[in-house]
Amino acid sequence: MDTGQIQEELRTAAERVRAETPLAGSITNAVTMNFVANAQLAVGGSAAMVYLADEAEGLAELGGAFYVNCGTLLPPHEASIPAVAAKMHELGKPLVLDPVGIGLGALRASVLRRIRLCKPAIVRGNASEVIALAELWGLDTGAGGSSGPVGVDSVDAVEDARAAAIAIARFTGGVVAVSGEADTVTDGRVVATSHGGSEMMKAITGMGCSQGGVIAIYATAADPLVAALAGVQVYNLAGRRAAERSGGTGTMQVAFLDELSKATAADIAGNPFELEEA
Amino acid sequence: MDTGQIQEELRTAAERVRAETPLAGSITNAVTMNFVANAQLAVGGSAAMVYLADEAEGLAELGGAFYVNCGTLLPPHEASIPAVAAKMHELGKPLVLDPVGIGLGALRASVLRRIRLCKPAIVRGNASEVIALAELWGLDTGAGGSSGPVGVDSVDAVEDARAAAIAIARFTGGVVAVSGEADTVTDGRVVATSHGGSEMMKAITGMGCSQGGVIAIYATAADPLVAALAGVQVYNLAGRRAAERSGGTGTMQVAFLDELSKATAADIAGNPFELEEA
Amino acid sequence: MDTGQIQEELRTAAERVRAETPLAGSITNAVTMNFVANAQLAVGGSAAMVYLADEAEGLAELGGAFYVNCGTLLPPHEASIPAVAAKMHELGKPLVLDPVGIGLGALRASVLRRIRLCKPAIVRGNASEVIALAELWGLDTGAGGSSGPVGVDSVDAVEDARAAAIAIARFTGGVVAVSGEADTVTDGRVVATSHGGSEMMKAITGMGCSQGGVIAIYATAADPLVAALAGVQVYNLAGRRAAERSGGTGTMQVAFLDELSKATAADIAGNPFELEEA
Repeated sequence: MDTGQIQEELRTAAERVRAETPLAGSITNAVTMNFVANAQLAVGGSAAMVYLADEAEGLAELGGAFYVNCGTLLPPHEASIPAVAAKMHELGKPLVLDPVGIGLGALRASVLRRIRLCKPAIVRGNASEVIALAELWGLDTGAGGSSGPVGVDSVDAVEDARAAAIAIARFTGGVVAVSGEADTVTDGRVVATSHGGSEMMKAITGMGCSQGGVIAIYATAADPLVAALAGVQVYNLAGRRAAERSGGTGTMQVAFLDELSKATAADIAGNPFELEEA
Repeated sequence: MDTGQIQEELRTAAERVRAETPLAGSITNAVTMNFVANAQLAVGGSAAMVYLADEAEGLAELGGAFYVNCGTLLPPHEASIPAVAAKMHELGKPLVLDPVGIGLGALRASVLRRIRLCKPAIVRGNASEVIALAELWGLDTGAGGSSGPVGVDSVDAVEDARAAAIAIARFTGGVVAVSGEADTVTDGRVVATSHGGSEMMKAITGMGCSQGGVIAIYATAADPLVAALAGVQVYNLAGRRAAERSGGTGTMQVAFLDELSKATAADIAGNPFELEEA
Repeated sequence: MDTGQIQEELRTAAERVRAETPLAGSITNAVTMNFVANAQLAVGGSAAMVYLADEAEGLAELGGAFYVNCGTLLPPHEASIPAVAAKMHELGKPLVLDPVGIGLGALRASVLRRIRLCKPAIVRGNASEVIALAELWGLDTGAGGSSGPVGVDSVDAVEDARAAAIAIARFTGGVVAVSGEADTVTDGRVVATSHGGSEMMKAITGMGCSQGGVIAIYATAADPLVAALAGVQVYNLAGRRAAERSGGTGTMQVAFLDELSKATAADIAGNPFELEEA
């Protein structure tokens, strides 16, 4: 697969989403739920968030993909996260996992361990989260561990998570997206590196969460590598454009949603990225 | 009741709300809670959201109306939604119900069935939700069913929900508002059709939820028909004005709140609508 | 301590926060969680929100301060709020408490009573909340009670809460911030009164909640009096500046976050305030 082919598939995925308004249900954290839903709508998708297991299973049937983000856990998540992961696995539909806050609390470790064998099609996280997930799942990365997540922000560089990302992708047969200064997406064979964004994105809560939700929307319309890269590309593009006209973090978030809603399929395919072997 | 009379009552309701900052408590979904509260404040009301039964009953005593939106259900809602509906019925105060996500999961169907006899003064939903509620409540609409809700978006036209809306209004002795391209409000005798809004409103999560919250604010100051129509009118007005100066879905939401906060009583009464017999 | 000294400490606190991105974890209400997190990031801090006891205790270990806001309570809060308060007390780290909705429901009264002996370093509330907390904790204020909170808005003036604020501060050995037209901060010995802000801030949900979160960020870098005053000063400054360029409540919230993110240490120290004996 070369860059031109991938650009063609990115374009097709973005166009299909704009044309078909596909649904991806979510179990996602309370802090950024609103931003996740608005980002999913802005790229052309449809959003629905739930807490309970039978509702998540219902959305798994209705939608083309499902997004699980394990921030702000509540007791019902103990049942609903494993249930929806099993359901998506059974249905052969893509699950997108954001292991936010990994390392914090017993329930989070428990649900993340339990969905290991459901092999999420796409894992999205910052470098520290991806390293911690590879460790939790007992994958051999041939590398040192993380300096440990502090709260929800990464303390590791994207490059340091490369081995962990590749190990997870090879284990799941899926794709891992690592966010940071330059974002990477790997299927265990190739690594795509996407450029753009802005320092200001760090000062807005939910940029990572909402990217996971947007990737789930694209996963209804493309294979995991293209879906994850589409989400990364549209965030790099919209973040860069929004920062150019923002006077602070308030206008930045608003301008970012505007740019997501205006990004064309050609824009998403044309944002700079390169491919290399894993 | 003719159009002129209703305009006069719309004006009075909007003025009273701006003058008195009335409280309407809410049990509402986590995705759009913030938008609901900000919309209620923008039109001049006061907002308070809860999950637990005794807190909801306390707000029922304090406020002039109460808003129940059954999105993102959690286990405490099994008790609190029926409890607050019973309390409002007992107090003779208006309950505004948004049956969002109807059809998804056992708990939602259970609580919606249990509040049937509390006869919400106002039901607000999209066409699919209103049709599904009439079915769930076993009301004879003399019409076919819905094609079924997909996630939280309507798959039916407002016109197709007319019989269901009238049936619910006649059963409750209250009012039903159906949102869509042209919004309708009926008390089972007349149907008011209100115009305005914008296609862009579909791309912002919580437009329906927050309209329910705003209707609850107006229900503290007017009868159900006028309250529901006031909420529909101010949304059509603010949506149309906001769309004129929006460059994407981010600025649209911000401009929409601005327009809600600036809409005068005369604006709300003057937005185009017509009346016909049901 | 004179005004000049305090200004110097305000400057130092604000600079340290911008330089070190300190974490303050939160248990806070679902309505305004997103705004709390974005406000904490805007002043230079790092945010993480949780519901569960072991996660809160984990964040207590990781962060320099912790914020508890008892709005939108759920059953897990019965364990997690007392647990994190005890943990912070044990660690000798500052807890910031916002007793929002005090008076509503049994669980809120129960958790507020249970954390009394953990003596929060900073209590932040509107006048009615501060009066009600002094009563709930059985503190002698030598003054009449509140007219009682209606929903989440104050029905008392800041001046009427002066005795209650001083009583709480003397009981905890900490600080109390009372928000209103002119905001006061007291440690039981001096009272600082800070000026600025805007009437429009009342029409935006979460201004108080997010100020509590911002105070927790400053409490990682300064003593409680300076931390609380820093939060009050930056809100008065940003609120005044934002109101000057806002066309409604939507742009007001956006402009407010912009101004928070642009406020310099010198701005925060230089906002007008005066000191007097308690």
